Amino acid sequence: MLFSDRSRYAENPIEEEDRVAFELQKKGEKIIKLSRGDPPSYFPTPKYILDAYIEALKEHRTTYSKSEGADILREAVAKRYRRLYKLDADPDSVLVTAGVSEALLFIDSAMMNEGDRAILFRPYYSLYLPILKTHGGRPIYEEYDGSKDWNINVERLSKSLKRLKADGKLNRVKYMMITNPNNPTGTVLDRNVLKEVVDLANEYRLLLISDEIYDEIVYNKAKFTSVCQLAKGMPYMVLNGASKVFDSTGFRIGFAITPENDKTSLAIREKLYDYALMRLSVNTPAQYAAAEAINNTVEHKRAINTMVSAIEKRANHATKLLNENPLFSTVRPNGAFYILPKIDLKETKFKDDREFVDSLLKEEDVQVTRGSGFGAPSHFRIVALAPQEILDLAINRINKFCRRHSR
Amino acid sequence: MLFSDRSRYAENPIEEEDRVAFELQKKGEKIIKLSRGDPPSYFPTPKYILDAYIEALKEHRTTYSKSEGADILREAVAKRYRRLYKLDADPDSVLVTAGVSEALLFIDSAMMNEGDRAILFRPYYSLYLPILKTHGGRPIYEEYDGSKDWNINVERLSKSLKRLKADGKLNRVKYMMITNPNNPTGTVLDRNVLKEVVDLANEYRLLLISDEIYDEIVYNKAKFTSVCQLAKGMPYMVLNGASKVFDSTGFRIGFAITPENDKTSLAIREKLYDYALMRLSVNTPAQYAAAEAINNTVEHKRAINTMVSAIEKRANHATKLLNENPLFSTVRPNGAFYILPKIDLKETKFKDDREFVDSLLKEEDVQVTRGSGFGAPSHFRIVALAPQEILDLAINRINKFCRRHSR
Repeated sequence: MLFSDRSRYAENPIEEEDRVAFELQKKGEKIIKLSRGDPPSYFPTPKYILDAYIEALKEHRTTYSKSEGADILREAVAKRYRRLYKLDADPDSVLVTAGVSEALLFIDSAMMNEGDRAILFRPYYSLYLPILKTHGGRPIYEEYDGSKDWNINVERLSKSLKRLKADGKLNRVKYMMITNPNNPTGTVLDRNVLKEVVDLANEYRLLLISDEIYDEIVYNKAKFTSVCQLAKGMPYMVLNGASKVFDSTGFRIGFAITPENDKTSLAIREKLYDYALMRLSVNTPAQYAAAEAINNTVEHKRAINTMVSAIEKRANHATKLLNENPLFSTVRPNGAFYILPKIDLKETKFKDDREFVDSLLKEEDVQVTRGSGFGAPSHFRIVALAPQEILDLAINRINKFCRRHSR
Repeated sequence: MLFSDRSRYAENPIEEEDRVAFELQKKGEKIIKLSRGDPPSYFPTPKYILDAYIEALKEHRTTYSKSEGADILREAVAKRYRRLYKLDADPDSVLVTAGVSEALLFIDSAMMNEGDRAILFRPYYSLYLPILKTHGGRPIYEEYDGSKDWNINVERLSKSLKRLKADGKLNRVKYMMITNPNNPTGTVLDRNVLKEVVDLANEYRLLLISDEIYDEIVYNKAKFTSVCQLAKGMPYMVLNGASKVFDSTGFRIGFAITPENDKTSLAIREKLYDYALMRLSVNTPAQYAAAEAINNTVEHKRAINTMVSAIEKRANHATKLLNENPLFSTVRPNGAFYILPKIDLKETKFKDDREFVDSLLKEEDVQVTRGSGFGAPSHFRIVALAPQEILDLAINRINKFCRRHSR
């Protein structure tokens, strides 16, 4: 046996069609790729951020940084949380990671013994599961409620936690993870709902981890609330980074913030720091660029407003077109840039969303992602970052494809 | 229990004195830090590499790259191996990682079940052990031979493998790891020795992994041989990266190369690719910079020659000074930039190398690393990158410190 048991869980559903797409491209087909949440592919990283990156290189910021992150970036992140959310954040509470994925890897490796649990809400961001499972953790699923715009049905959650506790199953739960704004649903959690989730986490002494990587990509007049505005006096974590809001996925800059100062929070900081030591440093000049990205609020405001209003138009337009397809029902997103139509599979010849997505790619050269990769079978995820004419073209092909294959 | 069992192994001995140093600095003390193998701290990253990095940013290479690495870099690495070692390398055999540390993390996660083994040679690079142990692996130690300039005593290795096999202990050995040139000893393995190690790996069907991150930092007329020049027809791996030879630690660019095309090698490539998918991408513009760093052989030759001849002088000078200290015996390094003196502890008041190193930092503001962090108790590691006057100053302080504390 060459490989470990855990290694069979290593995967990323978002990428699994990439090789098929690549083969098609080699044959000369032009793929419309709506599978990757990669803003700079459509909105070039703002010049002021690139300038800061270039400046850092000219200043020879090419050595290792501190393992926990460069001071300048940790301070920028702390200040941002003060500015946006009135969080009294200490730079020491901020760990810089190579994207949120590295933060997840550290957290799961630090916390999961074989058979330990994490509460994930379905649909979840696709990477939570393989990173959890390659560290021996197993999910307990709660549900975002598709009938309530994918918000959390607090009553149901409350009952479920009560039952888990009664069954003795909460002992081994290491954390409860939420994603707000959500990938893949685009949902922004209601403040009241979030408050109740925080209260439940408190009541059941669950470490709440909130992945808020899309926190400024909110539209349709929705209002985002960070968990740090509501969670006080209990250990919790916020995950964030420069990739989406600061339009720089390729920098690989993430943050894991543990704001409180109780014993557990400090122990988590210390433990994640030990993990950070084992990979020495995150890319150094990118950290300086990310610090300027955050600190230059004037330039940032301009950039984020431009991007978000474009995303709002594209996401709304695409949702409208998708809802015209009788096979789909689609909740309109108010944040991030993902749309998750539900496919009425029994009206098609496809047995599941995987087959739907795979045939769509092969027949129409349109690449989307299967919902089952996010714990949402019978759905597919479409990334609404592309310009309207591309989305139009893609959705027209999807509709044509559906007509051809509907019963 | 908040944390996993494995997490107690998360550490990096190289960094453990950093907090003490930081506290001293806050009190106004000026620390001579000879603990981090960070070339750009002393040899600014060459301008042609920075220019390529800046160019990549200006060309908006800020999206995710392919998870396995940007084509341009994988091709550059393959070409480099053809150029330097006549390896018929396929770009598909190259996985780009965020430093060698990420490659190790992928390898150990992919291969180690609880209780599986890796053969490590002592002294080993300090991070091999915590990364191995946080994935449930355990070391079987072989020894570099201090009496043979830290080369491998092949006869002893052969006997040892034979015994391990007889005892049924080889079944669970997933790989045998060597470091050439070595950190922390600076040893360049003899070609004949390496050949015999390769033959033994073949004979015992051990996956041989050779960490060759210092492959062009070789001096004193030593001659480096890559494992890829000798290993043919068996699965093996080479780890390398841009950090040291291309003087850009802060880029976090490493390579894991699996050159052969047998079933096992292809399975390893595939498995490590699955791991790479889970963190989406390595920093993208840095990959373009690393590609140019490798491809521009004219500029590289100039830069590496300048750096290596400076390191040669510094390492030789420092070794000479250290050997004048009656408490030390020191093998002269011929590669990398580390020196590993053995301390005659019984002639001092210190009970171990940890106490020696800690007292040295507190009393003399000189930061070195304890040998026990590399599996070499009673030794300490000194990084010979600093200019001669700094090394002089530091070693004078070390000598004074030894005189003060010798019996």
